[in-house]
Amino acid sequence: MTKKIILDLDTGIDDALALAYALGSPELDLIGVTGTYGNVLVDTGVRNALAILELFGRGDIPVFAGPDHARARDSFEVLEISEFIHGTNGVGEAELPEPSATVQDTSAVDFLVESVEAYGDDLVIVPTGPSTTIAAAIEASESFAQRAHIVMMGGALTVPGNVTQFSEANVNQDPEATDLLFRRAADVTMIGLDVTLQTLLTKAETATWRALGTPAGTFLADATDYYIKAYDTTAPHLGGCGLHDPLAVGVAVDPTLVTLLPINMKTDLEGETRGRTIGDETRLNDAVKTTRVAVAVDTDRFLAEFMRRLTSLASA
Amino acid sequence: MTKKIILDLDTGIDDALALAYALGSPELDLIGVTGTYGNVLVDTGVRNALAILELFGRGDIPVFAGPDHARARDSFEVLEISEFIHGTNGVGEAELPEPSATVQDTSAVDFLVESVEAYGDDLVIVPTGPSTTIAAAIEASESFAQRAHIVMMGGALTVPGNVTQFSEANVNQDPEATDLLFRRAADVTMIGLDVTLQTLLTKAETATWRALGTPAGTFLADATDYYIKAYDTTAPHLGGCGLHDPLAVGVAVDPTLVTLLPINMKTDLEGETRGRTIGDETRLNDAVKTTRVAVAVDTDRFLAEFMRRLTSLASA
Repeated sequence: MTKKIILDLDTGIDDALALAYALGSPELDLIGVTGTYGNVLVDTGVRNALAILELFGRGDIPVFAGPDHARARDSFEVLEISEFIHGTNGVGEAELPEPSATVQDTSAVDFLVESVEAYGDDLVIVPTGPSTTIAAAIEASESFAQRAHIVMMGGALTVPGNVTQFSEANVNQDPEATDLLFRRAADVTMIGLDVTLQTLLTKAETATWRALGTPAGTFLADATDYYIKAYDTTAPHLGGCGLHDPLAVGVAVDPTLVTLLPINMKTDLEGETRGRTIGDETRLNDAVKTTRVAVAVDTDRFLAEFMRRLTSLASA
Repeated sequence: MTKKIILDLDTGIDDALALAYALGSPELDLIGVTGTYGNVLVDTGVRNALAILELFGRGDIPVFAGPDHARARDSFEVLEISEFIHGTNGVGEAELPEPSATVQDTSAVDFLVESVEAYGDDLVIVPTGPSTTIAAAIEASESFAQRAHIVMMGGALTVPGNVTQFSEANVNQDPEATDLLFRRAADVTMIGLDVTLQTLLTKAETATWRALGTPAGTFLADATDYYIKAYDTTAPHLGGCGLHDPLAVGVAVDPTLVTLLPINMKTDLEGETRGRTIGDETRLNDAVKTTRVAVAVDTDRFLAEFMRRLTSLASA
């Protein structure tokens, strides 16, 4: 039986890879993409998602737009570091034809709330950007908060952040939203830097896609090579680029790829630690844990699944 | 077969409970106690260890003195918060007769190094205070660094610190020493606030000891009630006192009490995060992990073992 999935993307290079992972997974039925800001502006991300869906022959999948800035702010501008990592067009300056489809009239928040109403336990939601849209859905609907199954890419528990010593990039964009998610959503799986920095891709793998000679293969190779080059500068000790967003989709397909630690989490909002995701010491001994944090990953198995699915998808 | 154990204590109330746990464990052969500073001055800690050993009829076990201050400092004074938690005499103003035995002439560092030489894999070392003495032993002997099995109480990985938002009390005393331990010792098990704040004792349990009517029972009850009262002020959300140091001894007896995450750790030494214990992102993907951090604990089973061992010991 397939599982329905909604991706909440700030499409971005690793978001593009996550989208491809979902499309390449027969276990998943992608019923929609919601677009958020983060790596890019909402408009850019929505455009990229529409274009990538068409590139892979799935222009039928609807794309919805979410809020365009964080809860505690009035607007959003792409950070210099984001542009360095993802390029000005968000996909590493890789060419991507203009999509023919356009964004839906329904808001991302409404789509998320209605989808949980309609599909309940048959649906998983995978946010790979700031938590802004998901937090808005939680505030819009207590039923969403209680019934949604969320596998998020974001945060860092056992390793330092990547924007500051404390804060991971997605959480850093809207700490209040992630804190709300941790405190009010009933089922959150956190896929953070703890594990995503253990799943690295190199140019050896992207060469496989380039050799396919297909438009999709060329796109995946071009975009990812840009991303790997950025990592060579920002995190040379890793020797590759982190497959942040694809790992969250991988776990949505198969939770046994990671080891999950049940722990009630919080996001620090004040002072020097703003944006830190950490266990909430005041809820440490609560019997019910609403969040499970991935603390270990079967790297080899995930990378094999990732390459198998994306290479097969891009061969068509 | 019994396992030989050395406790490195800054005796302190929960150190006293850890010492009692070791004496009450037939699986363990306590071959010596090394005294460090932290909750108390070295002299006070050594005196308390000698006195408690005699109270439990084990005045034959030798006590050694370690360095009396941190690597990066010239001296040590007991912090106000330590005195609030452990009392001016270190054992919650509980009465403890003057010991007849005195501290050994051999230094704590020499005793540790020689014991690892003599017993190798048959020995476990449990430091429950600052890492100063263990770090000195590592620097004194590469063989010690490679062969010692260390189960330390200290640090916090998935929860905030208890001295600052980042730093746990033992690590906070000598961050350089803990960092050296993480980087150079081959086998470290970290029992931090992650798990010790999940193992709580209340006055319901100490009443059991008081009811025994023995000097040992009265001492345990008096000291621990003082400690519980301090926790009521410093961490009222917990509803009890954390059994920090005893849990480390518990794990030395039976590692299955906790879930261990293999991860190469570091201690932040500079700036605002000084004293934070966190995964070392530069060694995240190394195949060999020298540290395992306890991230979950079987609370019920540990508390049952703790009460069984201490109550039995104090009955005699």
